[in-house]
Parts: sequence; structure tokens; C-alpha cells
Amino acid sequence: MSERKPVLGILGGGQLARMMVLEGAPLGVTFRIVDPADTPCAAQLAPTRRADWNDLDALAPFAEAIDVATFDFENVPAETAQWLTEHVQVHPGPRALAVAQDRMAEKTLFRDIGLDTARFAAVDTRADLDRALHEIGAPAILKTRRLGYDGKGQFRLRDAVDADAAWAALGEQAAQHGLILEAFVPFDYEVSVIAVRGRDGEFRTWPLTRNWHADGILSLSLAPAPGADAIADSAFAHARTLAERLDYVGVFALELFVKDGRVLGNEMAPRVHNSGHWTYDGAVTSQFQNHVRAVLGLPLGDTSARGCSVMFNWIGAMPPVAPALAVGDVHWHDYGKSSRPGRKVGHATVCAADFATLRTRVEALAQALDRVEQASPLLDLPVS
Amino acid sequence: MSERKPVLGILGGGQLARMMVLEGAPLGVTFRIVDPADTPCAAQLAPTRRADWNDLDALAPFAEAIDVATFDFENVPAETAQWLTEHVQVHPGPRALAVAQDRMAEKTLFRDIGLDTARFAAVDTRADLDRALHEIGAPAILKTRRLGYDGKGQFRLRDAVDADAAWAALGEQAAQHGLILEAFVPFDYEVSVIAVRGRDGEFRTWPLTRNWHADGILSLSLAPAPGADAIADSAFAHARTLAERLDYVGVFALELFVKDGRVLGNEMAPRVHNSGHWTYDGAVTSQFQNHVRAVLGLPLGDTSARGCSVMFNWIGAMPPVAPALAVGDVHWHDYGKSSRPGRKVGHATVCAADFATLRTRVEALAQALDRVEQASPLLDLPVS
Repeated sequence: MSERKPVLGILGGGQLARMMVLEGAPLGVTFRIVDPADTPCAAQLAPTRRADWNDLDALAPFAEAIDVATFDFENVPAETAQWLTEHVQVHPGPRALAVAQDRMAEKTLFRDIGLDTARFAAVDTRADLDRALHEIGAPAILKTRRLGYDGKGQFRLRDAVDADAAWAALGEQAAQHGLILEAFVPFDYEVSVIAVRGRDGEFRTWPLTRNWHADGILSLSLAPAPGADAIADSAFAHARTLAERLDYVGVFALELFVKDGRVLGNEMAPRVHNSGHWTYDGAVTSQFQNHVRAVLGLPLGDTSARGCSVMFNWIGAMPPVAPALAVGDVHWHDYGKSSRPGRKVGHATVCAADFATLRTRVEALAQALDRVEQASPLLDLPVS
Repeated sequence: MSERKPVLGILGGGQLARMMVLEGAPLGVTFRIVDPADTPCAAQLAPTRRADWNDLDALAPFAEAIDVATFDFENVPAETAQWLTEHVQVHPGPRALAVAQDRMAEKTLFRDIGLDTARFAAVDTRADLDRALHEIGAPAILKTRRLGYDGKGQFRLRDAVDADAAWAALGEQAAQHGLILEAFVPFDYEVSVIAVRGRDGEFRTWPLTRNWHADGILSLSLAPAPGADAIADSAFAHARTLAERLDYVGVFALELFVKDGRVLGNEMAPRVHNSGHWTYDGAVTSQFQNHVRAVLGLPLGDTSARGCSVMFNWIGAMPPVAPALAVGDVHWHDYGKSSRPGRKVGHATVCAADFATLRTRVEALAQALDRVEQASPLLDLPVS
């Protein structure tokens, strides 16, 4: 960076943008945000402009005010991202976005780079669905190819007779977004790779994170993922190849299923990711700061974990803060949003030097907040 | 805190306010800032209003918009702080501010609680200065009782014959602010206690910090201060007594001289303090977050250090960021200010698990930024 300090524009003003601002501001970066909503939560911390994603006239003043653009929201239309590249540097680039926005393209790329996936098939018509079910078998999951997240736009088929119900739920979206049928994987557990690649190709990963979902939404993460040493090299190598194929710049997440000691690619997110939120408090450099560093061409920071960390997602409404802060080494993250069922409104990270201490703190936090059920996957793990 | 999230008002919008926002926002707190300047650096991160410190009409809308008030600037007039208490909770309170704003009141209180100080005497007239010099001897330092900081408003007298020069420099301020003559202490080294006290009286300290100044401005801090175990208990006990006497709420710094294994009180700062900036990256909970927690009545966080840390102050202009970030575990803090001689524009914190690694990193950083002279007090310390 020269004496003039860079202005980083973020498309989307949710909690990811908010944490990029909190972690990027100390680098001397100033931020500008654009979002279709009037007062997204990041607007509390940076100047924010309202614009729809495909309204290039409304986006033009944003593009003029910034040096580099990046994303809080991964489903910005590829045409908008392409248009932005005519004005400023855009990281990650439109091609990486386009691949990550389309489950077919994403899974095809996974296979191309030697990363196994569940069987899958494109579904554009009702007849395609029958054919795909015949090929793949049940149980299986019908998903929209585009715009799904947090379990939205998905229908689980236990049996071939569920095809009508699945089509009733998602058929209307086949024409606009396309659908994909994926075999259901009875995985042993889920992990994610949080990785960052610089403009110069430097590549780093944080330790593998183990994840637990509830109702399709991430509920709990633990890092470093215990017992995952055997798969880590292969997981990191796939993430690196993926990033190189896409000439990716910035942080991304690669979600993997682990089954019988093998990894299967589930999906990639072309942005900082909920399963990397623990790095804010539990790593030498957070995913948010390294994303900002990467997209601005600054050297990447150390991705080592400091001890181990658990992240609790707060969905719908924030628990009371005071009882949580009374527990040792608990870090609170309230996104400044109003309550709404199913909405990610905040998270807490619990850190410790070792797993036994972590477990004690997680139990104390869960009891203080009446969240023992949410903590139970972690509390049920063997202390080894 | 109830469901309605608190609004914290900060008087002063400099780097201390800026870091309070960065560290307090994750707690769900929103901030409002007031400052006499048009665009203080914290205005990049929180809504900011312009008002002079004694313009109560201009301050009224600020007071109406907030639940609790605190300070980035310690020299807000006591009358303004008192007026604020009629509208909102104010922490620290006006009495603590008043004592810390007056070097005579401060040093008198130090003596009262059994904390030794250099000899001192009030100086209101030229004749007072001669009398005080006779009593205290030279070398000595003539200081304004109020409004001095970073070595401003000070004149060092090597000998009694310097009295005329000292009076020429500061005599004009005797009538308005009062002066104080202090014996010069040929101290072995300087440390500061960074402490926090909650609304409920809970008291915590971070490990002692060793400080080095250049041209009257803090240049380098090292924490935990090596070899300071013998004085730590006494230093912490004095800080606690001081806080209790003032019914202090929030973070404060107590600067101490160490001479022959004894501590002497130099001054207290009724706010987060430059010598505690290392806690942002090098402690479980930073001084900024604990200050916000304390003034809002939330439980205090763990003040343990994570390994050891060195803070470099950047004065006048920021060094280039890229070479610094290439060094491991370096944390950059650019306050978003323009360059100006003598202005604190940023800092960097270097962290490590042990002192030998820290020394290696400090050396690498100092060389990368051509700041070997600034780092030399640290590099000259024995690696024990």
C-alpha cells in the first residue's frame, strides 16, 4: 500500500462485512459498503449505500469510491461482478464466484481436481428427477443449483415416492435456477477447510474445523478438529488445488464430509465463512484480517490456532450477554441485528489452552445460557 | 444489559475511542462520539458530533442519545462531567477525573494512600519557584498542574540558575493552570499498572508493563515487565487502593518509577492508556473491551497475558505496513490519522510465546522498518 490508504468496498453489509471492518480497520483500510437493505448491520461501522445487485446505475458511485471490491454476499450476480472488474480490482474474481454459485459447476470442478463427491445429477424437468433418482437412488437431496444457503432451497427424499413432494417444493425453481439431485451421504462427521490465498499465490490454511449443524444451520464448530490429522493433508491439498484452478484471491471455505477416513467435497463458499469465526479470537490472525490482507495484496498473517476454540452460533435472538462474560475466555459477538427466527444474530467463541479446559468452559457457558443441548455434540466427545 | 442494547457515549474521538469501538462493538454496544474537532479518527467508525467541551447546548443532544458516558480525553472540564451526571451515568466519575487532572491533587492522594512520590511543591508565583527549588533542589521539573501530556507543559531545570528560563517558558500558565515543581528522579526504569475496576468493585490488573519514552512520548512498551515480580504486589496494591479511594469505574493507568527496588508514583491516567495497547493483541481481554465492560456494568474479562508482547508507538507518520506484516505475529494499528510531527498515528504489537522468540521478531520488525534505534532498549535487555 502506498501513502494513500486503500478504500475497500464490500458488496453486502451483513455480519461478515461487519467483522471485516472490525478486523481490517486497524490496517488503516477504510471501508465502503453497498447492500440492497436500508440498514444492514455493518452500516453501524462503515458508510453504506443502498443499491440492488443488478442496478449498475446505483452501484456506480460505490465503484467510483473504492480501490478494491470484495464480497460479504456470495450470490452477487456474476454480471455485476464482471462489470465491477471494469472499474476496480475485484477479489475473488467473477469466475470463482460463478463456480461457487452453481452447485453443478462446483461439484464438477471438485471431481476434476480429484476430490470425490456424493453422486449428483442435474435436474431441469420432472422427468430428469425420475431419471436422476433411478441413477443415484434414495435417500437423496434435491437442491436448487443457485442461491441456496443455510439449508434453504433443499428437499430431502427418503424414498423414490417422495419425488412428487420434492417437485412440488422446488420444481418451480427448476426453470430459473436449475436443480441438482445429490446422493445422501451417511457421513461420520463434517469438517471445513478455511483457507486464504494471496494475490501472489501464497496459500495458507487454518487448522481443520469440525462442524455440527441444526436445522440446516451451523450450530457449533470446534477447532482444531480432533482426530482429523489423517485427513488434513489431503483436505488442504484439495483446497490448494481448488484455489489455484480458480486463481482465487481471499479467504474461502471448503466444506467436506468425512466417511471411513475419506473426504468428500460438499461445497465451497467464496468468502469468509461461519465455520471460521473462531479465528477472530482463537488464531494468531483471523480469517477476516487475512481476507482483507489478501484482497489488498498485503502479506498474509500466521494462521496458527492459539490453543483450541469452540464457536456457538446464536440463531434467532441473542442470549443474555452478562452470564456469558462471567465464564473465562469467552468472546462475545453480537452482530447488532434485530431478532428474527432462523436469523444468525451473533456467536460466542470459547478458547482454552487444552481440550479438557475447553470442555469445562463450554459446559459452564452452556449452563449459564441454558444451551446444554446446543453444546451436547461437543460435551459428548471423548476427552482424549 | 436488557434486550435494548446500550448506547455508550465517548467524550473525545481519538485513537482510544476508536479502539473502544473496535473492541466494544462485538458486545452489541453502539457508540456515539463527541469531539471539538470536525473529523477525529474515531468518526470513521461511529456517529460523531462536533461540540466544544464547555458548550453544554451543543453537548445536550449527545447526552440525550446515550445511556452511559465515558472518556477518550481526560481533560474534559470537571463542570462538563458534573453536568453529564445529571443526564446519564458517567464512568469514571467527575471526582476521579478532577484528581487526575491536577498534578497536585494526584500526588497528594498518592502520598495519602502510602505511595511514595518524588518531592513536589505547588508553584503559583516566581517567588514560589525559588522557594520550591530551595526545598527540593535541582535537578527538578517544572510542570503545569493541568492539561500537560506527552511531555508538553514541562521544563527541566538542571540547576537553580535555570529558574528564569523555566519561568519564561511556563510562568504565563501559573495563573490559569497552576504549576508544580517535582524533584527529578534518577529512576532505574519505568513501569505502569493497567487496571480495571467494575461498577461492583471487582478489580483486576494486567501484568506490569515496562515503558521507554523518547522526547517525552511513549516509544516502546514490554509486557509482562521482566524482573518486576518483586514490586508487582506493591504496585497492584497501590493501584487498588487508589481505585477504591476514587470509587473508580473503568480502566486506568498508574505510572510508576522503580528505583532501588522501590516504586514511586508518577501519575495516573483516568482512561485506557497507551502503555496498555499491547493488551489488544497480547492479552485474553484487552483494556478497551474491559473498559467498555466495566462502564456498562458487565463482568470483567480475563486480564492474563498470552505470552509476551512489545508495543512500538508510531509517532508523526506511519511506517510502511507491508514489510511489518511479513514478520510473524505482528499486529498493526493504523489510527487513520494524517501525518503530523509528534502526533501518535499508530502502533504495532509484536507477540510471542517466550522472550527469546519475541526478541527475534522485534529485531526483524525493527530492521524491516528501519527502526533499530527505537527498538534498542528492548534489544539491549539481557535474554534471561
